[in-house]
Amino acid sequence: MNRIRLFTPGPTNVPEEVLLEMARPIFHHRTQEYKTLFASVNKLLQQVLQTANPVVTIAGSGTAAFECAMINTIPQGGKVLSLSNGKFAERWVTIAKRNKCQVTELKVEYGHAVTPQQVADALSKGNYDAVTLCHSETSTCTVHDLQAIAAHVRKTEAILIVDGITSVGAIPVRPDEWGVDILVTGSQKALMLPPGLGFLSVSEKARKKIETISQPNLYLSLPHYLKSLSENDVPWTPAVTLVRGLHKSLEMITQEGLENVWKRTAALARATRSAATALGLKVFSSSPADSVTGIHYPAGFDDKTFRGAVRKQFNIHLAAGQGTMQGRIFRISHMGYVDALDTLGMISALEVVLKQQGYSFNFGAGVAAAHQELAKLAL
Amino acid sequence: MNRIRLFTPGPTNVPEEVLLEMARPIFHHRTQEYKTLFASVNKLLQQVLQTANPVVTIAGSGTAAFECAMINTIPQGGKVLSLSNGKFAERWVTIAKRNKCQVTELKVEYGHAVTPQQVADALSKGNYDAVTLCHSETSTCTVHDLQAIAAHVRKTEAILIVDGITSVGAIPVRPDEWGVDILVTGSQKALMLPPGLGFLSVSEKARKKIETISQPNLYLSLPHYLKSLSENDVPWTPAVTLVRGLHKSLEMITQEGLENVWKRTAALARATRSAATALGLKVFSSSPADSVTGIHYPAGFDDKTFRGAVRKQFNIHLAAGQGTMQGRIFRISHMGYVDALDTLGMISALEVVLKQQGYSFNFGAGVAAAHQELAKLAL
Repeated sequence: MNRIRLFTPGPTNVPEEVLLEMARPIFHHRTQEYKTLFASVNKLLQQVLQTANPVVTIAGSGTAAFECAMINTIPQGGKVLSLSNGKFAERWVTIAKRNKCQVTELKVEYGHAVTPQQVADALSKGNYDAVTLCHSETSTCTVHDLQAIAAHVRKTEAILIVDGITSVGAIPVRPDEWGVDILVTGSQKALMLPPGLGFLSVSEKARKKIETISQPNLYLSLPHYLKSLSENDVPWTPAVTLVRGLHKSLEMITQEGLENVWKRTAALARATRSAATALGLKVFSSSPADSVTGIHYPAGFDDKTFRGAVRKQFNIHLAAGQGTMQGRIFRISHMGYVDALDTLGMISALEVVLKQQGYSFNFGAGVAAAHQELAKLAL
Repeated sequence: MNRIRLFTPGPTNVPEEVLLEMARPIFHHRTQEYKTLFASVNKLLQQVLQTANPVVTIAGSGTAAFECAMINTIPQGGKVLSLSNGKFAERWVTIAKRNKCQVTELKVEYGHAVTPQQVADALSKGNYDAVTLCHSETSTCTVHDLQAIAAHVRKTEAILIVDGITSVGAIPVRPDEWGVDILVTGSQKALMLPPGLGFLSVSEKARKKIETISQPNLYLSLPHYLKSLSENDVPWTPAVTLVRGLHKSLEMITQEGLENVWKRTAALARATRSAATALGLKVFSSSPADSVTGIHYPAGFDDKTFRGAVRKQFNIHLAAGQGTMQGRIFRISHMGYVDALDTLGMISALEVVLKQQGYSFNFGAGVAAAHQELAKLAL
């Protein structure tokens, strides 16, 4: 038996229904059939992204979508306030710098969130064209208080561009209610799809900025996408099979109910954190995200040896730490197609390998603690 | 029965083996497993693109790959000689202009190819950073004499960037032998995949140019792709399932033998042209490509009515004319997963609907003419 169990924060497990939908015979994208599908996808995207704004779909990764957001809304030489607390936030800083923006970094150590007060203070000292942040910073398993941060940004002229790549469909995000102008996400996380699609919602405030911008890139030209989208069409050839899988996965999410998905994800995260604590392991981050949990290794543990054994014996794929946290933590995703029993099984596997590799703890304590949390879902 | 028969020049039919390969459980891309797969893909891509140069794979459309080629090799203000004979060539001109290049257009009417002599003359009058063209211009079903054109360009400092989106895997292209610096293609044509991947091969001459260029885009930054590729890795999250399907389709192409694929495609094109002629219909283009055939409508025929009837009765999807040829021609792809019997069936369907819609011809003449050509494949 070779059942792959992905607990990596992207790609995540793709439901069989979605895989099979993508395996059906392909059809052409310049047809009424595709327009009808895409119209339905676009409505479902608005539901799942919790926005009345248009949501653009790009054939590309989350990086493509975030770059699209930035280059189409921030002028050359524009001022960007970048909240930076991990590897992905650093990538958005790189994009800003390559595009000759003046970047002010609000940088905190890995495992911490920038506070709303820090943002308010920075905003009071300068005028910005845009503020960027990772809602859930995947590399450091850390969540920002997006609602409180957005409340400060919306009072200014700056637009708020949010990396929701591991928050959309996993934890509560309400861009319209909170004042997020551009919410970016990707296909291979809580949307339960293979990688290959990026998404961004675009507010009225952002669309006004776009009108004033002239940027050279054609493939990532947001006006082209928005114009086509208004007719449920696409400017360039779309990734047809992935969009079809997307339709299926969005249906699955809305049928379960987005709030139920959020609750499930939060419960899996709580169970995992409880288990870690019961095993005497420290959860990484002073502001842990519910989409992905980081756990410190016991002293003397080797990352590759540990994750390698978990993979070899159980075919469970955990993620390594990134950047400065490489070798110091391992990461577990709670996003998408994963439930209580999968999570209990994963914790059982962790216990077995921790024991094998000489860590001393009360065998079964993690599973019992997780069980306590997870049973609440059913009771 | 609802069997879709795509004769559109992209997307083309995707083989069942490829669809099923993509439907297998997903795995993570930061693993040895993915590196091994990608290493094999990269070798096969070099075989199918007929090059010893690195071939970069991008999650995006052919437009993304062509833009990547241009922005990373041509400086701002650089001089570009653009051969223009259709809608896709015009898109490459748009990219050049958005990127502030000085563009000299060698423009000919739709349905004609720019001659090697015209290119030689233009090159003798100016120094260019790059020459761009569509090898097979999909919108006008017209092929350029790439070998002869490349022979002129390679004598200059200019790099030759070729849109091989509907030539690679369909008609002979030998970039290294001929002197093509960057050969761009896409997944949803002769490579028999869904849309979502773009490719570009990069010559030594092009790589030297890249080193001198500073361009802002991160997602399409060629140095990032080339550096990762040297380790069979990717800078951003790849479209894992499409890459897996690609491995299968490249295996199918190399097992059939690339030259055999070229021969099959050419035979299907000849059969279709013979059939059109036998039916008294005019083949569009003074230099017809073997990857896609354009056929003029009989006087008084309506494009939507004709293609609609073919689709409704036979589920055969033909393509409309594009740009100025809209309504005047229909287009038939010969690329990828299509064989002699499919083609004979398609011609039979054309005859039936031509007859229904009042065109007068010798019923069966098209099928007989095609059969004569196609039988040669088996004999």
